[in-house]
Amino acid sequence: MTFIEQLRAAERQNRSLLCVGLDPEPTRFPGRLKGDANKIYDFCARIVDATADLVIAFKPQIAYFASHRAEGQLERLMEHIRRVAPQVPIILDAKRGDIGSTAEQYALEAFERYGADAVTLSPFMGFDSVAPYLKHEGKGAFLLCRTSNPGGADLQGQRLASVEGEPLLYEHVARLAQGPWNLNGQLGLVVGATYPAEIERVRALAPTVPLLIPGVGAQGGDAVATVRAGWREDAPIVVNSSRAICYASDGDDFAEAARREATRTRDGLEAAKG
Amino acid sequence: MTFIEQLRAAERQNRSLLCVGLDPEPTRFPGRLKGDANKIYDFCARIVDATADLVIAFKPQIAYFASHRAEGQLERLMEHIRRVAPQVPIILDAKRGDIGSTAEQYALEAFERYGADAVTLSPFMGFDSVAPYLKHEGKGAFLLCRTSNPGGADLQGQRLASVEGEPLLYEHVARLAQGPWNLNGQLGLVVGATYPAEIERVRALAPTVPLLIPGVGAQGGDAVATVRAGWREDAPIVVNSSRAICYASDGDDFAEAARREATRTRDGLEAAKG
Repeated sequence: MTFIEQLRAAERQNRSLLCVGLDPEPTRFPGRLKGDANKIYDFCARIVDATADLVIAFKPQIAYFASHRAEGQLERLMEHIRRVAPQVPIILDAKRGDIGSTAEQYALEAFERYGADAVTLSPFMGFDSVAPYLKHEGKGAFLLCRTSNPGGADLQGQRLASVEGEPLLYEHVARLAQGPWNLNGQLGLVVGATYPAEIERVRALAPTVPLLIPGVGAQGGDAVATVRAGWREDAPIVVNSSRAICYASDGDDFAEAARREATRTRDGLEAAKG
Repeated sequence: MTFIEQLRAAERQNRSLLCVGLDPEPTRFPGRLKGDANKIYDFCARIVDATADLVIAFKPQIAYFASHRAEGQLERLMEHIRRVAPQVPIILDAKRGDIGSTAEQYALEAFERYGADAVTLSPFMGFDSVAPYLKHEGKGAFLLCRTSNPGGADLQGQRLASVEGEPLLYEHVARLAQGPWNLNGQLGLVVGATYPAEIERVRALAPTVPLLIPGVGAQGGDAVATVRAGWREDAPIVVNSSRAICYASDGDDFAEAARREATRTRDGLEAAKG
């Protein structure tokens, strides 16, 4: 089953567009786990167990593991997700961007060492920074396209004089990911939830690729507007929420609180399909 | 001492613009080390010992460690470089590109966990993907600007209608790194060696920042043209060669061969200062 098929199957089975992002910060851990970097696996596994039937995907962000020398805990977490939620694809959020043999090493890290189903990538170095990942059959790669951080427009929002129709840089990336770069249907795009009009624009330029949409929940994106702008029957969107779910409670009931918050968000996204 | 001061001091002391890139590939290891991922540290440490008095910097590329579960070996290597070459700054080549609390985690990974003096970054997500690194006083950050891979121009070579003077995207990045983004003089730029005219262009737009220039050696860049285009008395260039030095011999004499090749390249770069 390819990554795209996995997404569609998980969307159907869990009736969900919600992706739970796993960004473990020991200083924010609840109750007895607080401050303990050796409990990163335990914390994340509890969140996974509490939400596995509510999500279209899980998305661990590798920086939070790497800063705490917790690669071993990430390996165990990936295995745990496979065991308790074999139907749920895993996106390793790493935003790699390099070329040639270096990109091949990053692809091995993501797909073989960690067993991820998809990764996030930066397109700044061009097609040969994407191609090495596409050699891994059936795996997915989400390219950064339009991010909703304050500086997101610094480069992505520039208008290109040298491309027909003078698109903005992010619109150019969307076209490349829909068309010439998408050799085997493995590509998706990352588009922030803050500006639904931009999600709509990306969806118009890239009608069939999956969109990974961070920024719903703690970052304030509007779930209904996001689904209306991006979701299409056969083109999944993967709406990420990390902190609002993982840190829904700072007490020992954190897993139950995460489940309640995930259910609420999942149901809101489903209802918005209309 | 800030990173820039470290670079200038190492340039003077070792009379060198050469950076040795450490991209360990066990399948290419020489002699008895061949194929052994447990010997990544040993291989790299031998290269470091053989070249420590010939370089302006060392540049380990993290992907080659991460794909082999060798973060522990990278930690040991960083400590080894500090011990045998305390005067030589270390650039961790990671090309990170993320924002907010995630970028803070990557900065902790590079500067605290590994003790690097500088990192490489992608500017695609804008200034707030760079700012978290600048909070680490005295540390350096090289932004990808113009890379000389075949797809390098896919985005970097696009002309911007929305910026005064209609610069190419990479020229825009060069200006940002010289000016508004360079709050405390911590930024540098990555510019490939393949097109000296582009190095010259970047140097004109960013007259004082250090340039990290990969592509001399195995990748075919011309050392003399590179120095003439990029080097200025008080604006260092860091000319990287990885494979041509690390894999100069596939026999047990590999360290001596690396030293000969590094000496040759170093001397060629020095002579080109004219």
